[in-house]
Amino acid sequence: MIKIALDGMGGDSAPGVIVEGAVEAVNEFGYDIILVGQESILKKELAKYTYDAGKIVIEHAPQVVDMGDSPVASIRAKKNSSVSVAVNLVKEKKANALVSAGNTGATVCAASFNLGLLKGIERPGISIVFPTSNKGNALMIDAGANIDTKPIHLFQYGLMADAYCKFILGKQNPRVGLLSIGEEKTKGTGFVKEGHKLLDDSKINFIGNIEGRDIFTGGCDIILCDGFVGNVVLKVAESLAGAVSTLLKRELSRNLFTIWGALLCRSTFEALKKELDYAEYGGAPLLGINGTCIISHGSSSARAIKNALKVADKFTRQDVNKHIIDGLGQYSGREMHGKKEER
Amino acid sequence: MIKIALDGMGGDSAPGVIVEGAVEAVNEFGYDIILVGQESILKKELAKYTYDAGKIVIEHAPQVVDMGDSPVASIRAKKNSSVSVAVNLVKEKKANALVSAGNTGATVCAASFNLGLLKGIERPGISIVFPTSNKGNALMIDAGANIDTKPIHLFQYGLMADAYCKFILGKQNPRVGLLSIGEEKTKGTGFVKEGHKLLDDSKINFIGNIEGRDIFTGGCDIILCDGFVGNVVLKVAESLAGAVSTLLKRELSRNLFTIWGALLCRSTFEALKKELDYAEYGGAPLLGINGTCIISHGSSSARAIKNALKVADKFTRQDVNKHIIDGLGQYSGREMHGKKEER
Repeated sequence: MIKIALDGMGGDSAPGVIVEGAVEAVNEFGYDIILVGQESILKKELAKYTYDAGKIVIEHAPQVVDMGDSPVASIRAKKNSSVSVAVNLVKEKKANALVSAGNTGATVCAASFNLGLLKGIERPGISIVFPTSNKGNALMIDAGANIDTKPIHLFQYGLMADAYCKFILGKQNPRVGLLSIGEEKTKGTGFVKEGHKLLDDSKINFIGNIEGRDIFTGGCDIILCDGFVGNVVLKVAESLAGAVSTLLKRELSRNLFTIWGALLCRSTFEALKKELDYAEYGGAPLLGINGTCIISHGSSSARAIKNALKVADKFTRQDVNKHIIDGLGQYSGREMHGKKEER
Repeated sequence: MIKIALDGMGGDSAPGVIVEGAVEAVNEFGYDIILVGQESILKKELAKYTYDAGKIVIEHAPQVVDMGDSPVASIRAKKNSSVSVAVNLVKEKKANALVSAGNTGATVCAASFNLGLLKGIERPGISIVFPTSNKGNALMIDAGANIDTKPIHLFQYGLMADAYCKFILGKQNPRVGLLSIGEEKTKGTGFVKEGHKLLDDSKINFIGNIEGRDIFTGGCDIILCDGFVGNVVLKVAESLAGAVSTLLKRELSRNLFTIWGALLCRSTFEALKKELDYAEYGGAPLLGINGTCIISHGSSSARAIKNALKVADKFTRQDVNKHIIDGLGQYSGREMHGKKEER
């Protein structure tokens, strides 16, 4: 049976929405959850709901990492924080996966230090799969795990994402694009230009620089970027989906004809909103970690937490890491560092 | 009479769409345009249209900066390129403004070197004003002029944008946000954290870090970011507006009810598309230049060029630079560099 460790104290509205999301996941999907955090607080929250009590057990963790805490320092100073205890449950194989909506940097640090990274990978990256306007999907990495990104990290994200796309998304020869501000390889920061060179020399199907406007059109299967840019892109996309919804409502209520039209289109708008609503995804896998770690938004709702638990369950069942490890197996140590094989 | 120098050779579809846009602007608004580029080619293009021949004069420029050219090198090597000649027309006061859809980096270099920068400003920034979902607007700077951004540039963008918002957009006390990946001042790259400190110590109404999701909600009036991130954000927003339009069309043609609804809503969708369509803006002012310089997309259509000429005309008529210079006048040289006044 799959067991998921859930950071009960991480997130802007923790522990309220976290506990609510856990209960929803138990009631809807029957998951087994280890809720990690301050026992008395979590107990009080859980008491508000009706659920199969055997499905949620509490693991006490006295400390909490705050959203504003420095990641590395907080992980060192708070060894008994909810996120560190959750990571250790995975390390000790008491849980198969962990989910946290807390301080992203702290979760990334705790998972990297305590679970370790896959062989040859130097930094983990958050990967998001989203729908594209040509009815396909695309994977973006990194959506915010690592903002001190080096070109070699971009390159290694490419190798991991390539394996993920082949084995999990079933794409034969995924097209890999590097996010920049112009198609020409002369465009972009020094960081992007160096990344371009490493990718150009690699075995993966690198199609060159792409621009912001290419992300959602389906012109490539994998979008590589540093964690700062990826995080901004993700949040812009989410907010625009919301803004479009608001604008439509406003525009559509302007006159009787459009109100009538809006009523007729309502089911359509619901479908559209769902397709563009990233909260629907709930959480995103932190690729590169030697274990399953799902990162949720700090502003996650109970529904987002429920869906993040779903992602954790699926990631574990699909044995994603095994596929990535197999995919990376074709590269030598030199190649993992962007160097050609010596003859 | 306002005269606008238009780079006839810059842009992915130059000179075709550039000339077409110039003719449209002349026929629609009666502008006076100096079309800069290879005379024989431009003449041939112009011969396709009917317009008041006195309103478009050609200024011959034998060289062209390509989209892939290195900005600094190309401006040095091609002194007679269309963009350099257009800049010189402004310098010699033969034109009031220039518009280019060519290599952005080259235009920024040519304008910075030949027209110079406003007193105390170290780098120019592309400023975009876009609608927000609360029926207001917001200004983002930099949308791609300067990708080698330093914290002091961010800070100076803030001062310029503050003056722009006060005098041109009529906002009393514009709220200035710094784009990062979390609200807390501990979040973001070293670059962002340093920028945060400079802004915190300044006279402007700095509200702290904002995230990608806050850009389009109207939570702040000014969004500060480096040119790489700003360019990506802008292009993501444009493409999502397009994607939403495509998705809507697809969803709305699913069944008879929604087709009927779509017909009733058509006028609404047109309004919505227009509101989100950044090509409607045509071009964006390069703030900080001692002169008027409007930057258009490389992929500009004739309509976008027409609208960019409109921006140039408006920027000149409103005497934007005078207002910015007045606004900056309240800061001492020390303050322009983020330092407190000595007592």
